Amino acid sequence: MASLVSISGPSSVKISSITGESSTYTPSRTLTTLPCPRSLQTSRSQHKGLSLVWQPEKRHTFSTVRASALPVSQEAPTQAASGSTSTSDGASKKTRVMVIGGDGYCGWATALHLSKKGYEVAIVDNLIRRLFDHQLGLDSLTPISSIHNRLRRWKSLTGKTIDLFIGDICDFEFLAETFKSFEPNAVVHFGEQRSAPYSMIDRSRAVFTQHNNVIGTLNVLFAIKEFQEECHLVKLGTMGEYGTPNIDIEEGYITITHNGRTDTLPYPKQASSFYHLSKVHDSNNIAFTCKAWGIRATDLNQGVVYGMRTDETEMHEELCNRFDYDGVFGTALNRFCVQAAVGHPLTVYGKGGQTRGYLDIRDTVQCVELAIANPANPSEFRVFNQFTEQFSVNELAALVTKAGMKLGLDVKTISVPNPRVEAEEHYYNAKHTKLIELGLKPHLLSDSLLDSILNFAIKYKDRVDQRQIMPSVSWKKIGVKPKTVTV
Amino acid sequence: MASLVSISGPSSVKISSITGESSTYTPSRTLTTLPCPRSLQTSRSQHKGLSLVWQPEKRHTFSTVRASALPVSQEAPTQAASGSTSTSDGASKKTRVMVIGGDGYCGWATALHLSKKGYEVAIVDNLIRRLFDHQLGLDSLTPISSIHNRLRRWKSLTGKTIDLFIGDICDFEFLAETFKSFEPNAVVHFGEQRSAPYSMIDRSRAVFTQHNNVIGTLNVLFAIKEFQEECHLVKLGTMGEYGTPNIDIEEGYITITHNGRTDTLPYPKQASSFYHLSKVHDSNNIAFTCKAWGIRATDLNQGVVYGMRTDETEMHEELCNRFDYDGVFGTALNRFCVQAAVGHPLTVYGKGGQTRGYLDIRDTVQCVELAIANPANPSEFRVFNQFTEQFSVNELAALVTKAGMKLGLDVKTISVPNPRVEAEEHYYNAKHTKLIELGLKPHLLSDSLLDSILNFAIKYKDRVDQRQIMPSVSWKKIGVKPKTVTV
Repeated sequence: MASLVSISGPSSVKISSITGESSTYTPSRTLTTLPCPRSLQTSRSQHKGLSLVWQPEKRHTFSTVRASALPVSQEAPTQAASGSTSTSDGASKKTRVMVIGGDGYCGWATALHLSKKGYEVAIVDNLIRRLFDHQLGLDSLTPISSIHNRLRRWKSLTGKTIDLFIGDICDFEFLAETFKSFEPNAVVHFGEQRSAPYSMIDRSRAVFTQHNNVIGTLNVLFAIKEFQEECHLVKLGTMGEYGTPNIDIEEGYITITHNGRTDTLPYPKQASSFYHLSKVHDSNNIAFTCKAWGIRATDLNQGVVYGMRTDETEMHEELCNRFDYDGVFGTALNRFCVQAAVGHPLTVYGKGGQTRGYLDIRDTVQCVELAIANPANPSEFRVFNQFTEQFSVNELAALVTKAGMKLGLDVKTISVPNPRVEAEEHYYNAKHTKLIELGLKPHLLSDSLLDSILNFAIKYKDRVDQRQIMPSVSWKKIGVKPKTVTV
Repeated sequence: MASLVSISGPSSVKISSITGESSTYTPSRTLTTLPCPRSLQTSRSQHKGLSLVWQPEKRHTFSTVRASALPVSQEAPTQAASGSTSTSDGASKKTRVMVIGGDGYCGWATALHLSKKGYEVAIVDNLIRRLFDHQLGLDSLTPISSIHNRLRRWKSLTGKTIDLFIGDICDFEFLAETFKSFEPNAVVHFGEQRSAPYSMIDRSRAVFTQHNNVIGTLNVLFAIKEFQEECHLVKLGTMGEYGTPNIDIEEGYITITHNGRTDTLPYPKQASSFYHLSKVHDSNNIAFTCKAWGIRATDLNQGVVYGMRTDETEMHEELCNRFDYDGVFGTALNRFCVQAAVGHPLTVYGKGGQTRGYLDIRDTVQCVELAIANPANPSEFRVFNQFTEQFSVNELAALVTKAGMKLGLDVKTISVPNPRVEAEEHYYNAKHTKLIELGLKPHLLSDSLLDSILNFAIKYKDRVDQRQIMPSVSWKKIGVKPKTVTV
């Protein structure tokens, strides 16, 4: 895939500085202010000051945009004790975390949280999630700023710099440059097409999803092997990889005694969309590289994330996170809250007995930090089930109805034909103890439903596009013709 | 990927007819002799006569070459009772089988076998396996004819026509045309990059392997769903998907009782190369489409295939199959026979306790026919373990040594450092009863070693390139730089 951002040669780019003034940026000016501007193959210490790095001598399909503000040494000291790594001489230096997909829903909240905690953070993103919205005629419930303005605002509020590399990790030449430039100690990989319905729109989106996710992750693995072999990969998987087996779901592995012999094997996977399958493929690929190359990796099999606010994103409206409620990117709980807010019946798919693991986005960022702070060993493929509570869809609808009543809303629930192929009544009991053992303190849905979601949905209800609420993608009707969106 | 064969506009192509004369083919002549020449979107009955179909009005990255000789009605009657399908009105018509990858080692033998048995066969292949040989400086031990000459010879010997579509199944537009034109009742899918070492040469070959195999198979699934929903997919998987667990390997599924509950789940997979992983990804994708779309599929988890001759390939030297002994595409047993023939020590990787399932290529063609003749039900994802005997590498070396002695050869065995990451001593007991139950009559290695392999290796020993025998690809040393081959 080509990258989405291209800076053409001699033109100038107008940007706002972190203090809010406007200035005109020209590549030639930056080229004179950076010690080693003609290539990104420089050590990180050479890139300081508010800068966009431009590579005039290379004609790549990608461009890298680095937004940083001040030298690290000028930053205000942080209160957090975390975010540091001990070096061989006993000194402590900041742990460098690359957040791939750091402009997305989970990625943005995570990048800010890690930055706040004292990690040195870089975001790698091709911004394609924003393109999906344009192409499908969707929008976040909340207004979101550009990634550039987000990072400038973060810098102005906290004094903390987050580096930015804009490009596509499926382009290995781009990814290699980001690794050589940033030298990450950990990579948090959110950079995948993450919607099951999106992957079931048509053949080309199914193929895109598997290609993008599988090849992107392969490239990350090769980059770690080649450039940063000690780097810890924290990969976002999904609880959906397991499907809904009729036995308890363990965390990644299951010990099986069969015909008198015993082995601990990868837990069987039964994914139910091309998206979920892509995560299964990733997990298998990563497990192999841990064994063959000694990669250290943590696979976070995340449940359905809900909520809008984290401590960091609520600091300023320009830091506000995206919130999806549409039939393609929205999840059941977010959608229900929006429906309650605008007086639309809650739309339960089928019988509503579908049970899944859920977690608050404030716990997503906690979990990722816990994984980074307690890295996997070399050759270890560690799997955590990352969720805090289980609910059926009917239970979610009941909770939202009850919370809505407290706010004086009249909430109805209807069943709509299930666009997916999934069991609507099934056993479900998934283990999720490993992150608790590392120190996760869960936010529970009953406590956060009102403050973190429903009130936000009400606040922004004038932005709701009710045409986007109903399911528009069918698991059975997917075809080979590209599906287009009309007005 | 672009296709490997391109027919440019006005030039003519010289071909030999089935009776051995030469004639000059010009597209315009064919365009006037075919009832509906301007598109491949015609029913199969419209394409008869010796023809290459050329599409001058379309500028695609693929070209389709159809080689057929005589109308089906003019063919000599076949002795075989197989190869027919009952229609709804009780009539019997030939079962139409598309063999993707039909120019390769297993595919070629299978295509001929099915044609001989009375199936109507089309080969779909982009011939990239031949390109790999050119690029890596390798060659089959046996001299092999072009696919065009192979098919003409087959026609001249048997009166049977095998259609040929040259193009890349990753190009969905091409694949769609082949489906609409040939209307297969079954698809046998060998059309994948099938070498573990090839997938471990460098990053670009790893990515190629997973992209090519996974996307190609996705396209086949979409083509079946869209154009031939009753078509039975017979997909070549590999026993290598299972790895070497410390418990018995079942055929695709395992019933697990855990914490007092029981379910039958996909057997856990532990693949050990990017190639083997690609087959795991395929299996997971196919299983999902069986469930979601009602696809009928059989996954043949094949063991290591050995041998050169089948009843059909030995009919004429122009039908001779390829035989790989090199470090990239050669398998242990074929390599050992070649080594014995030329006086090179047998090269056991590491301790030699690596145990796998093996089968004669004559059983490969039997198994595929059995799968086609007994199709999976709609929505069924059926898994057969396709091998007949288990051997360790040390056992193979001992068998070849013993057979070589009977022929007066002095056979030595050496251990070389294992280029792979794999257990060299392990438990291995894999079930393989389902194909036996369908009627498979195995050829056993002890009986066929001399006649089917070792004597062939001796016959062609002057063609052996001893520089290709040693392993050249390391699982641990794979890097991101493209690996080039020098003279």
